[in-house]
Amino acid sequence: MKIATVGTGPIVEAFLSALDDIDGPMCVAMYSRKETTAKPLADQYNIPTIYTHFDHMLADPNVEVVYVASPNSLHYQHALQALEHRKHVICEKPFTSTARELEHLISVARKNELMLFEAITTIHLPNYQLIKENIHKLGSIKMIQCNYSQYSSRYDRFLSGETPNVFNPAFSGGALMDINVYNIHFVMNLFGPPEAAHYIANQHANGIDTSGVLVLKYPHFISECVGCKDTQSMNFVLIQGEKGYIHVENGANGCRNVKIYLDDQTSELNAQTNDNLLYYETRTFYEMYQAKNFEKCYELLSYSHSVMRVMEHARREAGIEFPADSRER
Amino acid sequence: MKIATVGTGPIVEAFLSALDDIDGPMCVAMYSRKETTAKPLADQYNIPTIYTHFDHMLADPNVEVVYVASPNSLHYQHALQALEHRKHVICEKPFTSTARELEHLISVARKNELMLFEAITTIHLPNYQLIKENIHKLGSIKMIQCNYSQYSSRYDRFLSGETPNVFNPAFSGGALMDINVYNIHFVMNLFGPPEAAHYIANQHANGIDTSGVLVLKYPHFISECVGCKDTQSMNFVLIQGEKGYIHVENGANGCRNVKIYLDDQTSELNAQTNDNLLYYETRTFYEMYQAKNFEKCYELLSYSHSVMRVMEHARREAGIEFPADSRER
Repeated sequence: MKIATVGTGPIVEAFLSALDDIDGPMCVAMYSRKETTAKPLADQYNIPTIYTHFDHMLADPNVEVVYVASPNSLHYQHALQALEHRKHVICEKPFTSTARELEHLISVARKNELMLFEAITTIHLPNYQLIKENIHKLGSIKMIQCNYSQYSSRYDRFLSGETPNVFNPAFSGGALMDINVYNIHFVMNLFGPPEAAHYIANQHANGIDTSGVLVLKYPHFISECVGCKDTQSMNFVLIQGEKGYIHVENGANGCRNVKIYLDDQTSELNAQTNDNLLYYETRTFYEMYQAKNFEKCYELLSYSHSVMRVMEHARREAGIEFPADSRER
Repeated sequence: MKIATVGTGPIVEAFLSALDDIDGPMCVAMYSRKETTAKPLADQYNIPTIYTHFDHMLADPNVEVVYVASPNSLHYQHALQALEHRKHVICEKPFTSTARELEHLISVARKNELMLFEAITTIHLPNYQLIKENIHKLGSIKMIQCNYSQYSSRYDRFLSGETPNVFNPAFSGGALMDINVYNIHFVMNLFGPPEAAHYIANQHANGIDTSGVLVLKYPHFISECVGCKDTQSMNFVLIQGEKGYIHVENGANGCRNVKIYLDDQTSELNAQTNDNLLYYETRTFYEMYQAKNFEKCYELLSYSHSVMRVMEHARREAGIEFPADSRER
């Protein structure tokens, strides 16, 4: 499996490092508008080719899979072009800016018999699978509370008047898209779509959400997901059932240190050996790809689409508008 | 200061034990419909008189202050009668069933020049005062997240078909009134009334909320308060500011183990020496009473009224109706 990367942020290095830990896939090319930006990573990971034109990379017959890690708003365009050039696609979270963009990507992937995959850590982590296997012990679930807060390295620049991509509506940024997305995946991969979703956000003058609370209402329980890029906190997921609760220390992205509390009995679960969270999602994709398991691929896409629908609804209800919204009017 | 108690639940014992720790006030009488119910506590705390008629207790000139700890729905009636008999009143949380009931109590207290006091632990705790003094260190507050969950000792009976008072709308029960009230006090005593409040509840067939999420929206931050009587959890308050956060272990009722996290520096605050949380609120009342500080009394009442307004709005928005609501139509 020969991969080319799009984007040069820290996530690309994490991805390349994850690839290194898996036998089989390899990175054969990088795309970056400026060669100098990609050069250090290319050297470090022995990647032979850097393309400064996206079209040239897509024309390379050696490239089978494109890993898209450009700014959020460009995921759709980059993935679409790759699919149209008959490349399989791994696309970073959040998948697209709108549900309709994702629908179109899925239709192109299906038409061209290609794989398309959302790179989201949470749902592919071994500890998340352990939570799934053990959650029945809690009895009826009543409450799920999540907090994923990470003071953005770009927040100070934002406060001083600049507009980094992650805080720019034009780039589909914000706390819901960038960070709360992990909490949403945590809840929705376990329980499916909620019957109602409300997003209450702290919005900057430019409209972007620097933090917010997403309340997902299910028929028999409530989940509330806090995601902040403007403050630090203790991160966690708490799942409360009538017979006990599960505490996930450090939160949905990572699912490290899972503890189950049942009456007076506490137990700890851990099946994760690799500290690189991207290792597990990348391995999942590689196994699916090797097995040509299109059924699993389309199942995951249908699930990703349900997540995008909730995110788009919640975001627009809070009045956070992206250029992609108006293109669809 | 000579006190008579109304009610015989565990909270009354905590109150009597708190009185024992303060020089000055004493309990001179207990009211209970059945003498046998009050007898064990009366014996334990050397209380000379048990009244089985409320009127008889109110007619006792020896009684100066009435402590009301009857079921929620009866707070109003018991407090009103006591005020009308020119007794000062300490009333357990939640103060009344509706804001209008409290308005009436306040008007009678003012007219009769009497003290009226909401017995709520949180806001009178020394650690809560320390939080107030240190919160400016966090910079702009963005997010407050609370969880107070306590699996009710009466929940199993409720699930098996009985209707204990705490799960009975006729007795103004439920998670918002009984347990989330601590979170609401925690937030509102620091920040005043929110600009919007939404309550999303898990409601039983009889309409009562066994748990729920209250979202309080302030102009520049969001607070979400989880209160559950149907599940257990880790209890906490997390206050997130741009410069750091405060973690209150074990939650709003207690404010034990307060930690401030500022960049890499962590510090712990503790000024509480008495494990009986009711000690502090009772001492506050006693000092106010001794000093005849009516100004403070009415200030606190005005604040309590703002809490009742938020609770009533949130509860009614969620469709939780009490008999007190229809009496006011």
